[in-house]
Amino acid sequence: MADMAGNEDSEAGAASPALGIGMVGYAFMGATHSHAWRTVGHVFDLPMRPVMAAIGGRDADAVRAAAARHGWAAAETDWRALVDRDDVQLVDVCTPGDSHAEIAVAALEAGKHVLCEKPLANSVAEAEAMAAAAERAAARGQVAMVGFNYRRVPAVAYARRLIADGKVGTIRHVRVTYLQDWLVDPDFPLTWRLKREYAGSGALGDLGAHAVDLAQYLAGELLVGVSALTETFVRDRPELDGASSGLSGSGSARRGPVTVDDAALFTGRLTSGALASFEATRMASGRKNALRLEVNGERGSLAFDLERLNELSFHDHTESAESAGFRRILVTEPGHPYLEAWWPPGHALGYEHTFTHQARDLVVGIAEGAAPAPSFADGLQVQRVLAAVEESAEKNAVYTPVPS
Amino acid sequence: MADMAGNEDSEAGAASPALGIGMVGYAFMGATHSHAWRTVGHVFDLPMRPVMAAIGGRDADAVRAAAARHGWAAAETDWRALVDRDDVQLVDVCTPGDSHAEIAVAALEAGKHVLCEKPLANSVAEAEAMAAAAERAAARGQVAMVGFNYRRVPAVAYARRLIADGKVGTIRHVRVTYLQDWLVDPDFPLTWRLKREYAGSGALGDLGAHAVDLAQYLAGELLVGVSALTETFVRDRPELDGASSGLSGSGSARRGPVTVDDAALFTGRLTSGALASFEATRMASGRKNALRLEVNGERGSLAFDLERLNELSFHDHTESAESAGFRRILVTEPGHPYLEAWWPPGHALGYEHTFTHQARDLVVGIAEGAAPAPSFADGLQVQRVLAAVEESAEKNAVYTPVPS
Amino acid sequence: MADMAGNEDSEAGAASPALGIGMVGYAFMGATHSHAWRTVGHVFDLPMRPVMAAIGGRDADAVRAAAARHGWAAAETDWRALVDRDDVQLVDVCTPGDSHAEIAVAALEAGKHVLCEKPLANSVAEAEAMAAAAERAAARGQVAMVGFNYRRVPAVAYARRLIADGKVGTIRHVRVTYLQDWLVDPDFPLTWRLKREYAGSGALGDLGAHAVDLAQYLAGELLVGVSALTETFVRDRPELDGASSGLSGSGSARRGPVTVDDAALFTGRLTSGALASFEATRMASGRKNALRLEVNGERGSLAFDLERLNELSFHDHTESAESAGFRRILVTEPGHPYLEAWWPPGHALGYEHTFTHQARDLVVGIAEGAAPAPSFADGLQVQRVLAAVEESAEKNAVYTPVPS
Amino acid sequence: MADMAGNEDSEAGAASPALGIGMVGYAFMGATHSHAWRTVGHVFDLPMRPVMAAIGGRDADAVRAAAARHGWAAAETDWRALVDRDDVQLVDVCTPGDSHAEIAVAALEAGKHVLCEKPLANSVAEAEAMAAAAERAAARGQVAMVGFNYRRVPAVAYARRLIADGKVGTIRHVRVTYLQDWLVDPDFPLTWRLKREYAGSGALGDLGAHAVDLAQYLAGELLVGVSALTETFVRDRPELDGASSGLSGSGSARRGPVTVDDAALFTGRLTSGALASFEATRMASGRKNALRLEVNGERGSLAFDLERLNELSFHDHTESAESAGFRRILVTEPGHPYLEAWWPPGHALGYEHTFTHQARDLVVGIAEGAAPAPSFADGLQVQRVLAAVEESAEKNAVYTPVPS
Repeated sequence: MADMAGNEDSEAGAASPALGIGMVGYAFMGATHSHAWRTVGHVFDLPMRPVMAAIGGRDADAVRAAAARHGWAAAETDWRALVDRDDVQLVDVCTPGDSHAEIAVAALEAGKHVLCEKPLANSVAEAEAMAAAAERAAARGQVAMVGFNYRRVPAVAYARRLIADGKVGTIRHVRVTYLQDWLVDPDFPLTWRLKREYAGSGALGDLGAHAVDLAQYLAGELLVGVSALTETFVRDRPELDGASSGLSGSGSARRGPVTVDDAALFTGRLTSGALASFEATRMASGRKNALRLEVNGERGSLAFDLERLNELSFHDHTESAESAGFRRILVTEPGHPYLEAWWPPGHALGYEHTFTHQARDLVVGIAEGAAPAPSFADGLQVQRVLAAVEESAEKNAVYTPVPS
Repeated sequence: MADMAGNEDSEAGAASPALGIGMVGYAFMGATHSHAWRTVGHVFDLPMRPVMAAIGGRDADAVRAAAARHGWAAAETDWRALVDRDDVQLVDVCTPGDSHAEIAVAALEAGKHVLCEKPLANSVAEAEAMAAAAERAAARGQVAMVGFNYRRVPAVAYARRLIADGKVGTIRHVRVTYLQDWLVDPDFPLTWRLKREYAGSGALGDLGAHAVDLAQYLAGELLVGVSALTETFVRDRPELDGASSGLSGSGSARRGPVTVDDAALFTGRLTSGALASFEATRMASGRKNALRLEVNGERGSLAFDLERLNELSFHDHTESAESAGFRRILVTEPGHPYLEAWWPPGHALGYEHTFTHQARDLVVGIAEGAAPAPSFADGLQVQRVLAAVEESAEKNAVYTPVPS
Repeated sequence: MADMAGNEDSEAGAASPALGIGMVGYAFMGATHSHAWRTVGHVFDLPMRPVMAAIGGRDADAVRAAAARHGWAAAETDWRALVDRDDVQLVDVCTPGDSHAEIAVAALEAGKHVLCEKPLANSVAEAEAMAAAAERAAARGQVAMVGFNYRRVPAVAYARRLIADGKVGTIRHVRVTYLQDWLVDPDFPLTWRLKREYAGSGALGDLGAHAVDLAQYLAGELLVGVSALTETFVRDRPELDGASSGLSGSGSARRGPVTVDDAALFTGRLTSGALASFEATRMASGRKNALRLEVNGERGSLAFDLERLNELSFHDHTESAESAGFRRILVTEPGHPYLEAWWPPGHALGYEHTFTHQARDLVVGIAEGAAPAPSFADGLQVQRVLAAVEESAEKNAVYTPVPS
Repeated sequence: MADMAGNEDSEAGAASPALGIGMVGYAFMGATHSHAWRTVGHVFDLPMRPVMAAIGGRDADAVRAAAARHGWAAAETDWRALVDRDDVQLVDVCTPGDSHAEIAVAALEAGKHVLCEKPLANSVAEAEAMAAAAERAAARGQVAMVGFNYRRVPAVAYARRLIADGKVGTIRHVRVTYLQDWLVDPDFPLTWRLKREYAGSGALGDLGAHAVDLAQYLAGELLVGVSALTETFVRDRPELDGASSGLSGSGSARRGPVTVDDAALFTGRLTSGALASFEATRMASGRKNALRLEVNGERGSLAFDLERLNELSFHDHTESAESAGFRRILVTEPGHPYLEAWWPPGHALGYEHTFTHQARDLVVGIAEGAAPAPSFADGLQVQRVLAAVEESAEKNAVYTPVPS
């Protein structure tokens, strides 16, 4: 019999240095990030060993329960205490957008690496402060990353590889729709995600931020200007009766105003002159998580739908017209991004492993002293696009440049 | 043995009065309309018997060949002579947009019924003249119709029925993309479809007009304003070397300027406040005829793709969340629009029968003295939307009202 | 003005010799064949000009109405008289299977070309007599063809081309299911298609015959043996109350026995050793016309579904695993079989044009004196497969050789 | 700050009793089971707390590395020592089929609960011994389960619920194909999965066992007889050069005989008289993990494809023909099986969570003293079907009863 050294050591081998994680927030994103931290060391060969040191949240009972449920060694009720812990080297910010800037900047100034959920902040000013803090921290060898996790869907990462390899050629069109339907019911309650002071914006920041990041990431180009319409179809909703995770909750008889958009439509131009179109909404009945994107170029086209996240459609326009067609690539081959570590071909991965892959790249980046994209500067640029969208929507949809 | 009365009589029974058709133009649309006129009386029970009296075109040899090929009894090289024929009661205008107004107005003034291909005209002024002529003619019992044939795809007509029946409820979103790829090659030649003087506009009038008509038809609402971006990616192309049908041809070494848009993106608001988005392009590699539309309402959603024209997707949002989902309805049942006359369930119809159905409704309308939609007034309204799109595109995408 | 020579001449140009068609039967297949004969000369350049001379059927009123509806110049109530007409050079047999042999043999012996609907006959003995008659007639320059129309779906013909070109390599698997659901209701009435004396067999001959023909046609190989299970789930059904086309009708209170199979499942081996599987049923709820086939070979795979008949799926197994996938080819390009004569790319064709293409190939074959496949000998071979299936089903599914 | 009690306690709360797991085998199934044991307590509320006590394997270095990688506290090189450990209450058998019986019976006799990978054994005799041992153990309160994990795909479990609720009605057809392509290359090496002495059979036991189990599970009926063809297309392959996990490896120049089937096709009848068809193959180019199943009943139909495992297609045949169609249900709603514990609607789960759900049900079963299906008796019955398939294949496909 060969006794092992125990659970902690076994996670990624005794030789790797530990990387203590402290996570703030324990709702939906807290759960997915916990899952990723628990899993990443068992799937990938990592240069550092993630240790789930502490989780932070304001409600002592709730955070203690979350620590037990998700596998964190300790629980903190004050995020500042969590940031200050000696066993925390990486602060993972999973709170609503209104506290991102304060926590992330403090963590960076305390010498910690930071992973921050998207959108980076609720305003351009906050995002600028965060990007500046990240730049100062980078000079000290710290790493900061914004959690646009969909870049790490293997099919999306593979799409980027195909574009970078020239398989799509000069891009003419990028179109992204991100459709959900959880606000169709006018009696869905007024959670924090429907209040500007917490969420910054509505579908725009929640869904549109992903859409913008992916369009720019895939194209390898930036948006230079946008024209936008936004709408709040249901102007008041039942006030929350008790706590809520943002995506659910029970409403009371009293109604209060919705202060964010239900939907945002915008068009734009990319650096190269390509046209882009975007739609983000939570009012598209029957569409649960339909982040659909398509890129059309002179040499080929790509299409993706998050509801079928293991598949990528690729059309090779250099083939003969007779034999050409969109092919459905099952992105589950060992040669596809992240897949060598997983199951045999044809065995699907789930949504949550976008976070596992994000954690992998972040740990590698920290070990190598090189921040993986998307950086806080990337997050700031997305924030500028969102601000231009809101400005255009306020100004009768007039084409509004995105400051660079 | 029972001898029949011969081909003419047998087409729709000797008892029905004849309806003499005179068609102007013999390219792509001429072929599809001929197919429809040849077929409609053999599939549907009609109150009048369409007789393919004469086809008109400028090139004597070509029009004579077209008559032989498509089954027209006579050929004319002057459209005025065709309009004046006693055996022509209905003039079917299949020419490029620049001659629509002149021919259609003359035919109406000559007391003929008129079917005119879309878009109704190349300018709002022309369309206004046509709508006015149609209104005057209506007072004399004449019928005028614009050929937005996609309304007569059975799946589209059935979608309209579902919306009219309240299955979709209050509409929140309409999105239509019409994607083709025949201009991706920068050496595709400069056919009439790429010249403003003949075509009026590019993807906007060719594809966008269908998109706008369908969005409004399905929703049962009008666009009240739009914001638009347009682009001509390939600014010059080889001059044509010889004749062309518009969709093909061979190019010479000399290049000339493309004077229409390659692509048009626009967003808008419908009467009810619903948001709409549109994209029309001929530069989407791999998309051959991808007219895709989706309508999201409080009670349900509908989706359609012209590349799979026998199918309609319907999501019933009043079902339980567990059992709900987009269902693929094969629109080939006898109870579906137009289908009682066709094959058993599951036997697909082709694109060309949208014209057969259009011919059926038009013949019935003429017999009943009631013009079937879409009228010239409907065509004019679409023209106003297209003009508002172009105006917005010129004015930095600013939201531009559609005059009513 | 250029007067044309009238309808007859205009159909395919005055120079082409006429080919008089006489068709027996006017139900579903009568309608599709009429549509094809009416259309083929207007779409394809033909060396002979099909003339719809006469239609035959037993009920004088019905056949006269069918002639008027479908565009036949004369009507006959005795098929022998039709066969004997001087203006008939091609006899098109669209009756139920029990009369195929008698009519076809008589027509061949009368010196006429013959097109016979599938399955060729209701028994191997009948089919042998027909094949022998066809062989004798061939020596006299006559052409005989069996109507396995699905070979002429452009996507299927293109699939055959890809296989013939080696794109699939050594075939390992062929699987074909042909699923319909019009017999799910136990009160669907007892039409001729449910009686052995008229139909020969049930789903087996109706649907399975297509499946077998396509499998062999695509593979370019024959079935050497089969193992089968068949079943009649609903053993008695309401007797017909009045006439019926076979696919519909109203039932009376009295019930009678169903004497054919509702479903047939069989497996087999092809000449090369490839494995094949087949399922034919009219009891698959929700499947309207789901003829689905797939071929897997060492170098590639092909898949097709008749409910999406303008599409072919092709997987190229010689590509890298990362970029490989089933591509959806829209079989609407000018370079695809039959498509040069039709619409621009992306404009779908319907089911009925399989018959138009069949008519085209037959007319060309007659003009060139070369019978197009599938011949009556091919039809006989399919009949032998069906007989082996029935024999196997009676003998406890034991593997039963197909005589060659 | 609230210090937590450490990792062990936090997994499922200090109050739950521990359930020590000992797993034998560390290849593909070892990885998936480890993932499940690591995850299950963090996602579901469990009555017992799984503790990953020890992993067993013959190669000391490899098993030690596997323990470290997958998170097991100890490693054993002798499975008997593992079975005897006091901290192991559940033995999880993930070895090739030839050792299932010996290990599982020993574990049961040692008083341990057992989870055994499928197929239960390599022969009916072994499976009988195992089922007998399980029955004796059940009397002592022990639980035994066979790992047909696909029952725990949420979409499959939901399909079973719909059938049990009568939504499909009397079943007429069940068809299951399980297609993979990793043996298409004739130079894929001779791993243990291609040798009868280790694997028992080829595609039949590996893929066909799943197909049979799912068909019977969904239908709620058993197969009463089968007719089968099997084939080994590539009769010899390169001998392995070094170790292999079964699904990969490098081959040497020497070739040896493949002693299992490459493909198995079989048809059968279920208790109710419904017809069933099956195909299992590893030679279907382009199909990576295409376990596709369809059930057709008098009231509805269901279809599923493992390559899109978060979706279920359902056709309600009681709806009007006009509005009926297969609907694509995204099985990601809180009301779907297992989903309440996971992400919001539309966020896909991966393949590996079939094992997590299996672990959940097993832990609950152990805590409640009630073995969850499928039992060893269920596994034995599947083994009898597989044996009947092989017997039929040897006897010219004759219909062969499945002993009950």
